[in-house]
Amino acid sequence: MPAAPSTAGPTRTRSWWGWGYADAHPSDAECAALGALLPGTLARPLPVPRVADLDIGRPAATPPAALAHLVTADPRARAAHAMGKAYRDVARALRGRPGRIPDLVARPTGDREVADLLEWAGEQGVAVIPFGGGSSVVGGVEYRGEAHRAVLSLDLTSMDRVLEVDTTGRSARIQAGALGPALEDGLRPHGLTLRHFPQSFEFSTLGGWLATRAGGHYATGRTRIDDFVQSLTVVTPAGAGSSWRLPASGAGPSPDRLFLGSEGALGVLTEAWVRLQQRPRHKASAAVAFADFGRALDAVRALAQSDLAPANCRLLDPGEALLAGAARDGSSVLVLGFESADAPVGDRLARAVEVARAHGGRAGTAAAEPGAPADAAVTAWRSAFLRMPYLRDGLARMGAVVETFETAATWDRIPALIDAVRTGVGAAARAATGHPATVNCRLTHVYPDGAAPYFTVAVAGRPGAEVAVWDEVKAAATEILHRHRATVTHHHAVGRDHRPGYDRQRPEPFALALRAAKGALDPHGILNPGVLLG
Amino acid sequence: MPAAPSTAGPTRTRSWWGWGYADAHPSDAECAALGALLPGTLARPLPVPRVADLDIGRPAATPPAALAHLVTADPRARAAHAMGKAYRDVARALRGRPGRIPDLVARPTGDREVADLLEWAGEQGVAVIPFGGGSSVVGGVEYRGEAHRAVLSLDLTSMDRVLEVDTTGRSARIQAGALGPALEDGLRPHGLTLRHFPQSFEFSTLGGWLATRAGGHYATGRTRIDDFVQSLTVVTPAGAGSSWRLPASGAGPSPDRLFLGSEGALGVLTEAWVRLQQRPRHKASAAVAFADFGRALDAVRALAQSDLAPANCRLLDPGEALLAGAARDGSSVLVLGFESADAPVGDRLARAVEVARAHGGRAGTAAAEPGAPADAAVTAWRSAFLRMPYLRDGLARMGAVVETFETAATWDRIPALIDAVRTGVGAAARAATGHPATVNCRLTHVYPDGAAPYFTVAVAGRPGAEVAVWDEVKAAATEILHRHRATVTHHHAVGRDHRPGYDRQRPEPFALALRAAKGALDPHGILNPGVLLG
Repeated sequence: MPAAPSTAGPTRTRSWWGWGYADAHPSDAECAALGALLPGTLARPLPVPRVADLDIGRPAATPPAALAHLVTADPRARAAHAMGKAYRDVARALRGRPGRIPDLVARPTGDREVADLLEWAGEQGVAVIPFGGGSSVVGGVEYRGEAHRAVLSLDLTSMDRVLEVDTTGRSARIQAGALGPALEDGLRPHGLTLRHFPQSFEFSTLGGWLATRAGGHYATGRTRIDDFVQSLTVVTPAGAGSSWRLPASGAGPSPDRLFLGSEGALGVLTEAWVRLQQRPRHKASAAVAFADFGRALDAVRALAQSDLAPANCRLLDPGEALLAGAARDGSSVLVLGFESADAPVGDRLARAVEVARAHGGRAGTAAAEPGAPADAAVTAWRSAFLRMPYLRDGLARMGAVVETFETAATWDRIPALIDAVRTGVGAAARAATGHPATVNCRLTHVYPDGAAPYFTVAVAGRPGAEVAVWDEVKAAATEILHRHRATVTHHHAVGRDHRPGYDRQRPEPFALALRAAKGALDPHGILNPGVLLG
Repeated sequence: MPAAPSTAGPTRTRSWWGWGYADAHPSDAECAALGALLPGTLARPLPVPRVADLDIGRPAATPPAALAHLVTADPRARAAHAMGKAYRDVARALRGRPGRIPDLVARPTGDREVADLLEWAGEQGVAVIPFGGGSSVVGGVEYRGEAHRAVLSLDLTSMDRVLEVDTTGRSARIQAGALGPALEDGLRPHGLTLRHFPQSFEFSTLGGWLATRAGGHYATGRTRIDDFVQSLTVVTPAGAGSSWRLPASGAGPSPDRLFLGSEGALGVLTEAWVRLQQRPRHKASAAVAFADFGRALDAVRALAQSDLAPANCRLLDPGEALLAGAARDGSSVLVLGFESADAPVGDRLARAVEVARAHGGRAGTAAAEPGAPADAAVTAWRSAFLRMPYLRDGLARMGAVVETFETAATWDRIPALIDAVRTGVGAAARAATGHPATVNCRLTHVYPDGAAPYFTVAVAGRPGAEVAVWDEVKAAATEILHRHRATVTHHHAVGRDHRPGYDRQRPEPFALALRAAKGALDPHGILNPGVLLG
């Protein structure tokens, strides 16, 4: 998604319990103002949780001397590695009941060290949770259960370098622990870019993107990181290996595709060759308003089935458009963007706007080439997009239950699916809280054969039972998605939170194969236990 | 590749030993004329081999009564299912030494029957070789070895229907045994097309394309069938299942990608939902000649890295251009084609020709929009492309060794790779035969980060030892590809012939996972034994 790459320096402190940087969190007064928008929230914000208040015991395992320099038992590091950044994680921290705190945090600097840590953990029955930027919103980086002697969070962010750049073939070898901004900084001198900008861009790593098959910048075409992978290196308890650097290969099933999306359960992704692009020189964007959401869906489908290939093609329903400041009159808003390193894109934008108009769209002023100020609705949307997770945490401090979930389905199912989610999830949230709920929808990625709707739910919680409320709402959402044969996740991954939906959705022959692969690569069952399997 | 879809009726007889239709084979006189082009070939063509001359024994297994109606032991059917259509297969047939003739040929009509046949085969230790159009050129549809009691060729061409068409989401549910022309015939009334046109289009099936990750029509972008798969149904000895119809999903590793390219070793693909397109209304093509092959490579790389997305972008070296009748002056020829269902493509063609000119290309007359006669070089190439396998068989009857092999590599390796193959394979062919060899090259598919070179070798064989000659040449080719880290196959699959290269190229963690998956899905080891594994 088109987040402006930020290169904020490393001196800012990351929040251990909430999104992003601690100094970017809304103040108490801002929290109160946010809370006032949602009937039934608390009068005062919950206090910012402190590591000192957590009950962090002594580690239940001690690394061997040869690895000790890579491992810390520092309480602050352990707390910051206990969970991801889902609403559920924030709410648990705010109520003083975070997930299981890992015993140790390791920061290896190379493949050999990763292998050594896995070997030790296998011998000792220590669970290993691979950890990149820690931005999982699906319970992907925490330990649940009792089956392991101890828990090691394997933080890869000390492996964060761009190691090689091939300017002829526009590709680069990059370590898995590189956060988005550092990765783009390493490519910029070569005039190249990965252009993978998830909402978490500042706080997520290449390895995390690969392990979760992250959705990126492009709303059409190459929407996810998978298509940008030229070669992967994986370290498993049973051995390590790299696929060859190839633009394409038909030699058996794709070796990389088994590890893309494996969420740390099959091995640790330590580096990849990725496909790059020249930075776009030509850009144009526009916002188109629709009085009717159904007709807007038709317009988006027509665009997705055209050969126009917009980089951005995001449809906001009236609620999303209002929140983003893109429309205040109950319209739905389609945010369109085109870009190219080669040639002007104004004609493509004009054709796209024409398609939208044919379906009842009313176009605002299209932003011209190049460097012209973007359309106000586009700018408003982009800025709201990046600020959203911070606002969610501010609302959480007011006792609100605010979370997103996303899916994808074929076009024939999209209208009924969106209606069912609005109605059913709204009803579930009201039933769980007694308060009216907001359920908004946008389309984040679109395809010739379907689309990826992204929902936001906001409701005042039951004080002290916010997590239980969310779990009830989420269970209702999962049932609705399943009934409509919509995937349990388009780009947030499975983690632990999506297992109920995933287990029912996954075809049985693949489940058998995946279980067998896990047994072969992770014979002691130490790798991210409970994710995908087991 | 842009073969004109043929809808030749089912009344024509397929050759049991050579390519395509028996009545399309070159006559004896044509064979002799072809042979005269290659010094050292035979004076007279080898006779067309006859099934009656084969030593076809009684089947070593008998199907149970409940399945008997699906199974035949007819000698002609068994002979026609003994091998694929590689040069190696043709040469073995011509010398009366075809591959192991299967004991039985089964033609199931549905998933239940496939499952029942697998169950029976597992109980009896009968090897099962899934068989679509039988056009494998890598030993993918024959049995080698002694470990099984009998061999069953599982012919899926009785499952050949387009079952459902979703015109809203442009997709269709199609049975795996549908041959190319029948599949397109089923889609045409809906104004839709899969546009997957491998050279084997008339004689290969959807299931074969999926099982081998076939390369298709488009030279850039969505070059292979993988990207057109919305959902797969697979029947394995351990159970059957279908993935959900989804435009995209991030729920774990892609279940479909494990079965795409599994070449019948993990299960039998019985049907798929595939993504379709509207038929293109706008087309334009042109041929550009280059005096210098190296500069032509640079031009193709620039085009692959642009946002022009040509549907066709095939570079013929001077030898290929001569054979195709596209140039007779030692030039290399770039065949460019654009198409769209939406908008005229003349401007994209013009920009592409401009890029080629900037690298020293000399453009012929571009064919105009729409329906205008294509450029002569383009037409010549297309017609030669479809006729080529028949000519190969004609040359084989003259004792020539004529075969193709293909690969892919990143751009930094392409020039040296092509040079090394020309030199090394030419030398190996000469050493094996004492005759001068022709080694030609074209690029069939191109990517921003690399290209797929396709080589043709032609040399007079050692009479009676043609297969041994080819095996020596192929071993030399495999070594060269390996040394240059070029994949053992871009789109011909692994089969049995590419195992030596594949086993060395495949990363070890994936090998472990694949072996475990095979063990779980095919516990009796009956599915296409020797392909990919074992």
